[in-house]
Amino acid sequence: MMGPAGIRTLTEPQDMAAYLQGVRGEVGRSPVVFLPETTDQVADCVRHCGQAGRPFVAQSGNTGLVGASVPDDVGDTAVLSLSRLRETFELDLANRSLRVSAGFRLSEVNDRLAEHGLFFPIDLGSDPMIGGMVATNTGGGRFLRYGDVRRNTLGLTVVLDDGVVLRLGSSVRKDNTGPDWKHLHIGSSGWFGTITEAILNLEPVVAEQATALVIPSSDEAMLTLLRHLETRAGPLLSAFEFMSRAAMGHAFRHAASLKNPFPRGEIPETALLVELSRPTRAPWDTPLQDVLEAVLAEAWDIADAPVADAFFGRPQEIWALRHALSEGVKAAGPLIAFDLGFTRDKVIAFRAAMTGLLGQNFPMVEICDFGHLGDGGLHFNLVKRDGPLDDEFERSLRDCVMDQAVRAFGGSFSAEHGIGPKNDRYFRMFGQQSTDLLEQSMRAVQRRHL
Amino acid sequence: MMGPAGIRTLTEPQDMAAYLQGVRGEVGRSPVVFLPETTDQVADCVRHCGQAGRPFVAQSGNTGLVGASVPDDVGDTAVLSLSRLRETFELDLANRSLRVSAGFRLSEVNDRLAEHGLFFPIDLGSDPMIGGMVATNTGGGRFLRYGDVRRNTLGLTVVLDDGVVLRLGSSVRKDNTGPDWKHLHIGSSGWFGTITEAILNLEPVVAEQATALVIPSSDEAMLTLLRHLETRAGPLLSAFEFMSRAAMGHAFRHAASLKNPFPRGEIPETALLVELSRPTRAPWDTPLQDVLEAVLAEAWDIADAPVADAFFGRPQEIWALRHALSEGVKAAGPLIAFDLGFTRDKVIAFRAAMTGLLGQNFPMVEICDFGHLGDGGLHFNLVKRDGPLDDEFERSLRDCVMDQAVRAFGGSFSAEHGIGPKNDRYFRMFGQQSTDLLEQSMRAVQRRHL
Ligand SMILES: Cc1cc2nc3c(=O)[nH]c(=O)nc-3n(C[C@H](O)[C@H](O)[C@H](O)COP(=O)(O)OP(=O)(O)OC[C@H]3O[C@@H](n4cnc5c(N)ncnc54)[C@H](O)[C@@H]3O)c2cc1C
Ligand SMILES: Cc1cc2nc3c(=O)[nH]c(=O)nc-3n(C[C@H](O)[C@H](O)[C@H](O)COP(=O)(O)OP(=O)(O)OC[C@H]3O[C@@H](n4cnc5c(N)ncnc54)[C@H](O)[C@@H]3O)c2cc1C
Repeated sequence: MMGPAGIRTLTEPQDMAAYLQGVRGEVGRSPVVFLPETTDQVADCVRHCGQAGRPFVAQSGNTGLVGASVPDDVGDTAVLSLSRLRETFELDLANRSLRVSAGFRLSEVNDRLAEHGLFFPIDLGSDPMIGGMVATNTGGGRFLRYGDVRRNTLGLTVVLDDGVVLRLGSSVRKDNTGPDWKHLHIGSSGWFGTITEAILNLEPVVAEQATALVIPSSDEAMLTLLRHLETRAGPLLSAFEFMSRAAMGHAFRHAASLKNPFPRGEIPETALLVELSRPTRAPWDTPLQDVLEAVLAEAWDIADAPVADAFFGRPQEIWALRHALSEGVKAAGPLIAFDLGFTRDKVIAFRAAMTGLLGQNFPMVEICDFGHLGDGGLHFNLVKRDGPLDDEFERSLRDCVMDQAVRAFGGSFSAEHGIGPKNDRYFRMFGQQSTDLLEQSMRAVQRRHL
Repeated sequence: MMGPAGIRTLTEPQDMAAYLQGVRGEVGRSPVVFLPETTDQVADCVRHCGQAGRPFVAQSGNTGLVGASVPDDVGDTAVLSLSRLRETFELDLANRSLRVSAGFRLSEVNDRLAEHGLFFPIDLGSDPMIGGMVATNTGGGRFLRYGDVRRNTLGLTVVLDDGVVLRLGSSVRKDNTGPDWKHLHIGSSGWFGTITEAILNLEPVVAEQATALVIPSSDEAMLTLLRHLETRAGPLLSAFEFMSRAAMGHAFRHAASLKNPFPRGEIPETALLVELSRPTRAPWDTPLQDVLEAVLAEAWDIADAPVADAFFGRPQEIWALRHALSEGVKAAGPLIAFDLGFTRDKVIAFRAAMTGLLGQNFPMVEICDFGHLGDGGLHFNLVKRDGPLDDEFERSLRDCVMDQAVRAFGGSFSAEHGIGPKNDRYFRMFGQQSTDLLEQSMRAVQRRHL
């Protein structure tokens, strides 16, 4: 028997196939996929694996971008899929909170919440499940307004590798009765346990939004504009996304139906997607479209005049461009993608430095970047123009970019995707501190007798 | 010699006195107060204490309410005061972040930031220092809008008890390169290390606010109103504070200069302080006072008509009443104070149940409560009306309240003040889980080889 009694398991290659293939093309091998339906069943699986000496990998929506949600190709690692773990969906309306099983998809959670005027405010281009979102601490495009999964998690149920079930935190928002252990598990890629349930903070749904494409007058002006918007539009500001000409160009070439909003179709060097939104449109409110126009008009007059031009349009159309960048760049040629994080001013300095450095040392790559400038996130994507990638080229290019990002610009080599086979080389290179921290932190905890 | 070389120390009783007395009347004894001025000096002190086998207690602003910032009366515990640790104050304007030493007072931080239009958005009635704020994860009155210290902390420097200095996190907002160890130290009352520096998220200062006193039509109506405000005023809502008649009555009796805003001076059963605010007052914005009036007028018409009456006034005057509650209640007689946290609907159910239970079993106490209803925080304060408190009475009363709060209503026995001598009885009673969690979490971490 391949698993503990009463738990659905898959062992046929054709049944397992979908669980063995990741979104970045990685394919693993495995003897068995477990599909537990309750927290107790997860504990059974985990104990079973422990007793059998079988490694396992937790998988929720399998949309992760670092190759960590599928097994490696050795073939002895089981897949612990949380996708059937759907036992709990408990909405507390007055508290704006939801206790939900790991196997619910983000889209389904938000569909079910819509009739109550609430949503889980993490916004991204894929449709992950709650368990994987907690494990990777998903960020996304509205981070600037709503924060990441960590900020919106009140409690967790975690199954440790010895089968012990921990309930960490609760729906109570103000609770300082000891160390807050749930944070050990948020964004830790499942290293310390398997998440089976989360208690989430919910926000009122967006009822009105206004969006513009803004052409900054210079790279430095982007930050001036951001500060202006943060002050003048205040908490209405919900996105401030950066798009390079190269990325936009590939998106237009790839997605034929995409409307080019620029005069004479001339794509500017950089464009910013600026969005204001709020959960209501009350009679006393100035329409957001007018607010956005007014606040950008003001920006023409402030010092350094950060705005060169601005185009307004329906939010869906403008976001369509932003959402098409990823696929467009992928279609342009062999892709070397980076998910970097910086302090906000360093995003611009890093890009400038890399333009010079890559131009000299890797003239065959094109920088096609875009990102969440409002929170310092940069999807630094490179396309190789002169034919296929080989491993050695890719590695030397990656090493060069990572070294600059981390050593020279104090950035993060994984802003929002977590750690896995696709980037663990850099975890080992720059994350040494993390191993030390683990040991030091543990020793500090051990010294203290509660 | 009482300490390591080069570090300012106090050993004379008159010099040490201020460091030995807490705000809740507790007075401890100590052989020495250390006043390090740098992180390295803190490490020296900590190592010195370790070698000498001397316990120490970290102290920052000494405004903590659970007796944990002063030594006990045994007399062998040193005070490690962070109040002179002021080496770092590095503002990153573009990133809206500040690297700051533990010894800066909140008021000084915000005074220095004012000229840049930024502030550290934690708001409370005392003036603590950054180190103590991180150690207690301070909440306060604008939690509903800005969150707690945890939400606004990007990085920490911590000195462990063996003198090792850890730098956890950084100014980079998006960073998921491994477990986020800084959370081990936020809100942990200094158990695992001494905080010497923090990197804080800053927000644009408030430029416009509008405040009202609202009389709810029933207790349940308070939550209906809260949900209405969260939807219609959205991110403008920055405070939703609950005040009981008893607490307001004592405030008016105690603070002679306080204006009674109610018609004929008749204090209602409960009043809510509702505040809207934003970082700007732009020409296109409807004045917040008008927004507040309109959104409350709407509330008259919605189902359950949650608003019975509303009074508008200058924010300072209305907040003066809220801020006078604490002292007013203290002056009314012997005080037994609780800092409780609940899910939002349970706040009201708990109050109703306690009114019955205390009326029967402790008829000599008056419930004079108030709190942060918007986030489920309740300062459940009891005044004994028939003469002085004795220890046994106080303990049985406390046990009764805590048992109901935690066991019957799933609440937190320390919503925002942390753990210390004033509540460690309940940490031992209900926090058993915490000890288990510590051990279980540590074992989970140990099993995993990075
Ligand atoms: C088109 C596209 C756009 C994306 N955009 C963004 C973006 O803007 N921001 C962003 O942050 N991410 C983005 N991602 C990445 C990805 O969607 C997120 O990381 C997502 O949250 C992962 O959730 P998942 O359920 O798919 O997890 P999986 O892919 O199944 O797993 C991810 C990791 O978490 C672990 N894990 C999964 N479930 C559990 C569990 N229950 N307990 C413990 N560990 C577990 C896995 O072992 C693995 O290490 C994008 C991905 C795609 C394909
Ligand atoms: C009138 C009044 C109103 C208040 N209102 C609120 C409120 O609304 N919300 C709220 O949350 N709190 C409130 N408090 C409580 C208190 O002000 C906060 O807990 C405050 O953040 C404590 O900071 P401090 O610098 O005074 O810390 P201290 O009192 O010096 O220390 C508090 C705890 O932290 C530890 N500690 C201190 N510094 C460090 C350090 N550098 N490293 C490690 N551990 C350390 C101490 O050992 C102790 O356990 C109030 C207090 C008063 C007197």
